Amino acid sequence: MTDYTAPVRDIRFVLEHVTPLAELTALDAYSHADPDLVYGLLEEAGRFSSQAIAPTNRDGDTEGARVEGDEVILPGSFKRVYDQYVEAGWGTLQHPTEFGGGGFPLVVANAVKETINSANLAFSLGPLLTTGAVYLLTHHGSDEQQQTYLPKMVTGEWSGTMNLTEPQAGSDVGAVTTKAVPNDDGTYAITGQKIYITFGEHQLTDNIIHLVLARLPDAPPGTKGISLFIVPKFLVNEDGSLGERNDVKVVSVEHKLGIHASPTCVMAYGDDGDGAIGYLVGEPNTGMRGMFTMMNDARLGVGIQGLAIAERAYQQALAYSQERRQGRGPTSEPGEQSPIIEHADVRRMLLTQKAYIEAMRALCYLNGHALDLAHASADPVVREQQQKLADLLTPLSKAWCTDLGVELTSLALQIHGGMGYVEETGVAQHYRDARIAPIYEGTNGIQALDLVGRKLPYDGGAFVKSFLADLATFPDELPESLSSIASHLRDAVQQLEQVTDWIFEHREQPNDVFAGATPYLRIFATVVGGWLLATGAKAAREQLDAGAGDGSGATHVWDDDFLEAKIVTARFYAEQLLPQVAGLAGAVTAGADDLYALSPEQLASR
Amino acid sequence: MTDYTAPVRDIRFVLEHVTPLAELTALDAYSHADPDLVYGLLEEAGRFSSQAIAPTNRDGDTEGARVEGDEVILPGSFKRVYDQYVEAGWGTLQHPTEFGGGGFPLVVANAVKETINSANLAFSLGPLLTTGAVYLLTHHGSDEQQQTYLPKMVTGEWSGTMNLTEPQAGSDVGAVTTKAVPNDDGTYAITGQKIYITFGEHQLTDNIIHLVLARLPDAPPGTKGISLFIVPKFLVNEDGSLGERNDVKVVSVEHKLGIHASPTCVMAYGDDGDGAIGYLVGEPNTGMRGMFTMMNDARLGVGIQGLAIAERAYQQALAYSQERRQGRGPTSEPGEQSPIIEHADVRRMLLTQKAYIEAMRALCYLNGHALDLAHASADPVVREQQQKLADLLTPLSKAWCTDLGVELTSLALQIHGGMGYVEETGVAQHYRDARIAPIYEGTNGIQALDLVGRKLPYDGGAFVKSFLADLATFPDELPESLSSIASHLRDAVQQLEQVTDWIFEHREQPNDVFAGATPYLRIFATVVGGWLLATGAKAAREQLDAGAGDGSGATHVWDDDFLEAKIVTARFYAEQLLPQVAGLAGAVTAGADDLYALSPEQLASR
Repeated sequence: MTDYTAPVRDIRFVLEHVTPLAELTALDAYSHADPDLVYGLLEEAGRFSSQAIAPTNRDGDTEGARVEGDEVILPGSFKRVYDQYVEAGWGTLQHPTEFGGGGFPLVVANAVKETINSANLAFSLGPLLTTGAVYLLTHHGSDEQQQTYLPKMVTGEWSGTMNLTEPQAGSDVGAVTTKAVPNDDGTYAITGQKIYITFGEHQLTDNIIHLVLARLPDAPPGTKGISLFIVPKFLVNEDGSLGERNDVKVVSVEHKLGIHASPTCVMAYGDDGDGAIGYLVGEPNTGMRGMFTMMNDARLGVGIQGLAIAERAYQQALAYSQERRQGRGPTSEPGEQSPIIEHADVRRMLLTQKAYIEAMRALCYLNGHALDLAHASADPVVREQQQKLADLLTPLSKAWCTDLGVELTSLALQIHGGMGYVEETGVAQHYRDARIAPIYEGTNGIQALDLVGRKLPYDGGAFVKSFLADLATFPDELPESLSSIASHLRDAVQQLEQVTDWIFEHREQPNDVFAGATPYLRIFATVVGGWLLATGAKAAREQLDAGAGDGSGATHVWDDDFLEAKIVTARFYAEQLLPQVAGLAGAVTAGADDLYALSPEQLASR
Repeated sequence: MTDYTAPVRDIRFVLEHVTPLAELTALDAYSHADPDLVYGLLEEAGRFSSQAIAPTNRDGDTEGARVEGDEVILPGSFKRVYDQYVEAGWGTLQHPTEFGGGGFPLVVANAVKETINSANLAFSLGPLLTTGAVYLLTHHGSDEQQQTYLPKMVTGEWSGTMNLTEPQAGSDVGAVTTKAVPNDDGTYAITGQKIYITFGEHQLTDNIIHLVLARLPDAPPGTKGISLFIVPKFLVNEDGSLGERNDVKVVSVEHKLGIHASPTCVMAYGDDGDGAIGYLVGEPNTGMRGMFTMMNDARLGVGIQGLAIAERAYQQALAYSQERRQGRGPTSEPGEQSPIIEHADVRRMLLTQKAYIEAMRALCYLNGHALDLAHASADPVVREQQQKLADLLTPLSKAWCTDLGVELTSLALQIHGGMGYVEETGVAQHYRDARIAPIYEGTNGIQALDLVGRKLPYDGGAFVKSFLADLATFPDELPESLSSIASHLRDAVQQLEQVTDWIFEHREQPNDVFAGATPYLRIFATVVGGWLLATGAKAAREQLDAGAGDGSGATHVWDDDFLEAKIVTARFYAEQLLPQVAGLAGAVTAGADDLYALSPEQLASR
């Protein structure tokens, strides 16, 4: 019942027809990533995720993570699967070849990550954090630091963590108070407590490399006084062997709503002595720059979690809807119970999931595609434009896909009826697991502020307006047979342009703009999703018209049924989901007055 | 942090100005329910819920319910609080005086239930099921059955259960297979297994009166062959004392996503012998009629659960938003962390909760008000019309309020950031608890079918059209100072009328109508909510204009701040939430074709 099959054909469809992988493999940097090689690799990764990782998901939920002494104990099945993950090299894909990485485009690594996220979200967070730490050291570590840590972190033999949050410093990272005092030997003594440290302690790897934000003595206040330190669990000797245990310990793990097997640790630095030994990364007081470097990658990664958990829950709901018989569908005989998939309302729930999932997938892959071009294009103008595009799309990927992750796992649960509320069924776990993603890596409210406050102003607004102008002309490219999609998309883009104009007209009243940021982000992402699904439908139509879906060509992995489903799904989205943007415009342009019209006492007056 | 204060002033505002209690107390049947008596009673009930029950909520979640032998063990705190509940007579309010009930209007009992639901949803389900059983026996039990069971059930000394569901018979109640075979002495031998039996076994009461759906030999198939039986846990002797233990046993309790302390039991009838002893209620094969009798009451009760859990989560989020400091709000000094309530996006989340909660409250109370008039009006025309209104509103109350219960507890969790995901904070429990309500007592999909398939056709459509015509003229009654509310409401009612017309035009294609039933219900309820909030705003405006809110009159419990908050809240809803109906219309009128265009294989093609 909780089986998962990696959606490799659907991923490949996006990579061939929506956000072309071929554009990336045409670049020198990715010339070795031959599409056929990539698709073979995705097949293999999909099998690993489906067959090896997915069965550990329920164990992870029921056994969870627990502290014993200074150790965190994870479910027994995790170690074996993690070792297989390291051995197969799944963690290396996106990292530089010079440190043992695969040098693949991010979109390829992300496709693999999607399947691992679906298979076991809690498990996947360990590798996710390691990837973030590698990314950071790749960009900001010294040569010596890179040589010391990266080869083993790239493979996953050592894991990494990110230590930002403290009780008083959550969304407000600038409020960090952990101290770093220089020692005589060039190292630093780190003291303080960090919370919400994902995979802060565990036994999956021989060493854990903590990246820690802390303040030097006399550092300026706020984000400008934060420095970044490497604090390894075990110090590393000059020959690369492991030395002394550092003074960093897990204090406790949180008892959470979901992702039970992901140890969310309270970490103590320097509790047993003069401080944990840390190594400064980059210049003093530039720690936040490091964080910003990896932010797009990490936020996109969380968006993919929303997509991934929705995909898994959808597969489970779809299977259940074919097994479970209740009542009579429109074509059933009297006295016969139909599979519930025959009921219109269940179909609505399924198609809503399918359409949003495929829109999310296209958005996340486009976002990765932009990051790859920004990283590897030979043309500096392309690099700059694609970086801006990635910056614009990242809050959409993060917030929209994680909000939808919650909404769609809830639909999947609903399809199960009473069974959905029983934990053994497994779908409630997806619903619980999905709920973290709108919170961490910048709450979705912060994503919305990022979109309106930082991204829209790029080039004085010219960048986003040009992006929207492209969207506005796209419907003209759709063939007559997709005219309903074209017409709904045209309306929706126009509404997005109108609310965007309103935002620019009110840039001098930032709080009025912030007041509508969340519904604005929802509109923006819903429209982008519609555009990308329409792009896929157009490609599917062309394939069908060319007779390419008949299976006669060896390279065609999609049959007519698959291609026709793309068109129906895009049409359903355009006609039945996309119009919701019209209902959100009023909340974007209402301003802040009513939000602040009531005092806290009035809000509480009942 | 998990404190709860019963919203007694807000409830009273609804009962004075939106769904006038005075209309009910003017009736002979409720003439003893003097409003001042009622408001005093609500104050007392609010204190009991807030001070006695609310503190047991977290215990209930962490300890839960478990089976030991033939017994179910509930958290230790429950027995004490339950005894207080019985002693104070809180369970008796709505029941007939002839069996020891209070004979109060349902709205009064429901107001008390709202506060108990908020205080501890899992706990409240025991009394809820007892109420349903009393209701059923009041209407369908024989005199002897009523005398035997009702006095102790009305007080809550004995509890009741409803035994409908079997593994193959969930939404499809007609598929029940539990057997009832006549014994020689006029009793019946009941054999079979029932699932999802709320409070099927526990130690709170001396006896448990199970009401069980079963089939007589030779009963016709489907719902027309279902009979209703009383199966007491302990047989009752002629003198009213308890006799033999009946052959009904708990087999297990479900491990659920939430409401952990509500024992959801698998019950076995007749496992140890020839069958449990049961007593037929009413005529053979009329069991479903009994179910329908209590359906409005029970479904409205579940709608109130959605309201109640949203209210409690809102109170917690509002308190947290004033304690937690992160970042800088628009009016803060540099270097100072603001309470997060100063951030526009947090304000949006809070006001969204407040507005929907007050709209839900007004809807549920109007629904109860209609049931009271249908029950007690001296005028048969009023009784008939109000029964139809209650029938129309019930699926709205049940589905809309429970969907919103999930959405709004999710917003409350989001306001807590990372803390919200940690179970100790308590808000995650509300989110988990709330998720059952869209499922039980008829899934929300079934509510939507009930609305379009059974309720809209009343009087060939004339009933609903007349109701909507009244809504359409209401905005004209609003004063100029509420013109924005009037204008948005006018638009929304018009959209509701348009989609309603579409439904009537397509009555010959029922599956096209069913395909859009869920978004239609959402539109309908959102508009009704807007109308009721506007009704409250109008009353608040009148009070303010009359200077009645200045505290000078002893009978005025609402100060200017409260009354002004009513206006702002209604305006926020009208301008920022109500427009969402426009975005849902497309999904109502799209028909079923696209929903059925894909085969299950195509839905799975990935």
